[in-house]
Amino acid sequence: MRSSHRILIWLALLTASLGVAVGQTSGNAEDPVLAADAAWLKVYAAKDLDKSVAFCDDEGSMLVPGSPIATGKAAIAKAIASDFANSDLVWHPNKSGVARSGELGYTSGTYEMRLKSAPGKTILDKGKYLTVWKKEADGSWKVLFDMFNSDLPPS
Amino acid sequence: MRSSHRILIWLALLTASLGVAVGQTSGNAEDPVLAADAAWLKVYAAKDLDKSVAFCDDEGSMLVPGSPIATGKAAIAKAIASDFANSDLVWHPNKSGVARSGELGYTSGTYEMRLKSAPGKTILDKGKYLTVWKKEADGSWKVLFDMFNSDLPPS
Repeated sequence: MRSSHRILIWLALLTASLGVAVGQTSGNAEDPVLAADAAWLKVYAAKDLDKSVAFCDDEGSMLVPGSPIATGKAAIAKAIASDFANSDLVWHPNKSGVARSGELGYTSGTYEMRLKSAPGKTILDKGKYLTVWKKEADGSWKVLFDMFNSDLPPS
Repeated sequence: MRSSHRILIWLALLTASLGVAVGQTSGNAEDPVLAADAAWLKVYAAKDLDKSVAFCDDEGSMLVPGSPIATGKAAIAKAIASDFANSDLVWHPNKSGVARSGELGYTSGTYEMRLKSAPGKTILDKGKYLTVWKKEADGSWKVLFDMFNSDLPPS
């Protein structure tokens, strides 16, 4: 009963977040980092490893709880693959900004994660994230740093 | 024996990190966010609450593990006061950058924290951090976002 309740909450959060993300992409063409954030979420939620890694700068870093800094595409691919295998993740940006010069920006917000804690068991985690974006020479926005941590006390 | 060993390791890390931070301040006058990062560490390590909070933008956020996002100086003061009461923290920037327009930047690196886990007991934590800096109208650099998480698995 509690487990099915959690799944329902998760599905509600997922649906709501996809709605928010799509709204932000289409409604914020003037905010390129929010558009990049939403585009990254789209391939991340679809667990497309190649496309998710391709959003990262060659010197980009993922700062994942429980692991040292992962820098470069090979290390990032390993971190994201582990994420895909162990969890379902959605996030919701609530702040963003771009430098006047237009090549450095950030997005930040909250996330919900459904973690596989044991065979057939999941736990819901929620927390926050911070992403630093860099505009590349080809005009695309890439992740320089991505970091998250949980709102919940250690279990 | 183990406890005194930990204290020795901590003192060594503290000494090393203070050396690094001072080196970066004086040696990187051309890198204003590294200088701001080192100046913030100085007042943070001294547990000067007012000066530590004053480094944050009025709309700044601290993204602390185990708590929701803390935005604004009152919430940040509470988060930092809790940090000061429960831990000793040092950090070591290893990357920094500033937008060409000169008003947005970041620093990132590693930290060591000595946490009071129970009366008379401490545990050593290590991890990484990411800070987004904004240059204010008066030319000072303020923290827009500050976030950290542990390298260690949940205990």
